[in-house]
Amino acid sequence: MACLSTCLEEEVRMPLYGGVEAGGTRFVCAIGSSPDKLEAQVSFTTTTPDETIGRTIAFFQQYQRRESLLAVGIGSFGPVDLNPTSPKFGYITTTPKPGWANTEFYGRISRALAVPVGFDTDVNAAALGEATWGAAKGLETFIYMTVGTGIGGGGMVNGQLLHGLLHPEMGHLRLPHNLDQDPYPGACPFHGDCFEGLAAGPALLGRWGHRAEELPADHPAWRLEAHYLALGLANLICTLSPQRIILGGGIMQQMALFQMVRRNVQQLLNGYLQVPAILQQIDQYIVPAALGNRAGVLGAIALAKKTAQVNRP
Amino acid sequence: MACLSTCLEEEVRMPLYGGVEAGGTRFVCAIGSSPDKLEAQVSFTTTTPDETIGRTIAFFQQYQRRESLLAVGIGSFGPVDLNPTSPKFGYITTTPKPGWANTEFYGRISRALAVPVGFDTDVNAAALGEATWGAAKGLETFIYMTVGTGIGGGGMVNGQLLHGLLHPEMGHLRLPHNLDQDPYPGACPFHGDCFEGLAAGPALLGRWGHRAEELPADHPAWRLEAHYLALGLANLICTLSPQRIILGGGIMQQMALFQMVRRNVQQLLNGYLQVPAILQQIDQYIVPAALGNRAGVLGAIALAKKTAQVNRP
Repeated sequence: MACLSTCLEEEVRMPLYGGVEAGGTRFVCAIGSSPDKLEAQVSFTTTTPDETIGRTIAFFQQYQRRESLLAVGIGSFGPVDLNPTSPKFGYITTTPKPGWANTEFYGRISRALAVPVGFDTDVNAAALGEATWGAAKGLETFIYMTVGTGIGGGGMVNGQLLHGLLHPEMGHLRLPHNLDQDPYPGACPFHGDCFEGLAAGPALLGRWGHRAEELPADHPAWRLEAHYLALGLANLICTLSPQRIILGGGIMQQMALFQMVRRNVQQLLNGYLQVPAILQQIDQYIVPAALGNRAGVLGAIALAKKTAQVNRP
Repeated sequence: MACLSTCLEEEVRMPLYGGVEAGGTRFVCAIGSSPDKLEAQVSFTTTTPDETIGRTIAFFQQYQRRESLLAVGIGSFGPVDLNPTSPKFGYITTTPKPGWANTEFYGRISRALAVPVGFDTDVNAAALGEATWGAAKGLETFIYMTVGTGIGGGGMVNGQLLHGLLHPEMGHLRLPHNLDQDPYPGACPFHGDCFEGLAAGPALLGRWGHRAEELPADHPAWRLEAHYLALGLANLICTLSPQRIILGGGIMQQMALFQMVRRNVQQLLNGYLQVPAILQQIDQYIVPAALGNRAGVLGAIALAKKTAQVNRP
């Protein structure tokens, strides 16, 4: 009995953080403090806001009863309002996802759990995860981009997460689109053939009649996909001059893409940027997420830790 | 005599900073401490590195004999090496400008004047000038872009100048180019029809046979120019989410462009970014440089002041 009591006491004292990877398709919630110290993780389908946010709260409350939850981090699909002075701070705003437009998110979690809550985009959270434990350790300026059902990008500049007026929407870059070679008109409801409209999951399905995971590595779809990804990355390189680009998301599970994208980026830049990172070491410049598909939820835990530090009494 | 001696003594004590706007066509050097406190300014054609850097040094040395020059700031055309740990820090690197590739710049000025020297891109210096005294006062994240013989962009993210792996090269974004509507192949020696290749001075001359300043405000050239500028800006907005975009450079002297660019940007974004700054207040979102064509040299003085602060004993 004495031992059990000591162990429980130690458990109570261990600082635990909650992370929420809030995706448009699935939510992943976890409790822990680092990649190798995850106490629990749960994942469920994104249904209505009430049900989905309710399940998120219930997951953390069940741990709060016996453990010390110091803070929660949320990396959310968007667009989201990140302006701390806005009355809609922490809302999901203009998403086309049915039922989710104008949804209060941060506030509901914050009131229910009564702990400090960090709130950012899903890609910024993943970027923070990669900066803390993954492929962006020690870097000051880098990009994390996810390519899946949509395309989103976040990252850091000079060691701080990118926010600005709203937050980056890197999936909506306008790119060259040769209609003779690729007559597919694009799938974005706002912009047609923007980056996401040409290269995210719905575009692959619409153009080839198959989902990304059904296309074999030698299918011509991947050559075209690499072409568009490289155009997008070349533009991001010219704008942000990142020290590294980390790619995650379902479509990047096709590992053959990486080499094709790297070669295409080099061809597009055409020696203009005379830096070894691009000219000679591009294999270490455009890389998969080191945390794999856990980048999002681990990044949310990193965001929780950061939030707890800021709010330390 | 007593009065003259006092005045001179005061003059000696007044802190003065040097600024160099090092352009590929002209150099502008100035001494002062703010827009309304400029002691002297000189401008000369960019010839060989020896002659041009020599004239720059001579200009400042003549003031050093009788005044206290605390620091010098240089905003240089590029590409430049801004990596403080690189042996080529402060060099102009791969420029196609004859005679200037691989030119030591920072080091020569620094040794000759023996004062702290700040070194950055021309556009980052102009951005710093606008942040200190102009259209970016109080902003954390913004872009300064110049459209002239080339296109270049700099700016700040979270209050710090954008650097990264090298520095931004925003003029080399790849944009949609409808060859049926605009068969001009583009003027960039590296990328053909990149942003700069389609929309900088040489493209206007090549496409229309006239220099920008010869084209009347109702010439169809401006509609096409606004189209490309808006494509470039929409991409920058989606990547950096700036709180404001400041446009300078010779081509932006055609003030009719601003309204056309603003409307085009709104059409391209198509309501995706639901922020008042873009939807309702775009006249204050895409703006001319408040410091006009002095943004570069004043920004270099702001860079000198910043450098003097960092190097304060």
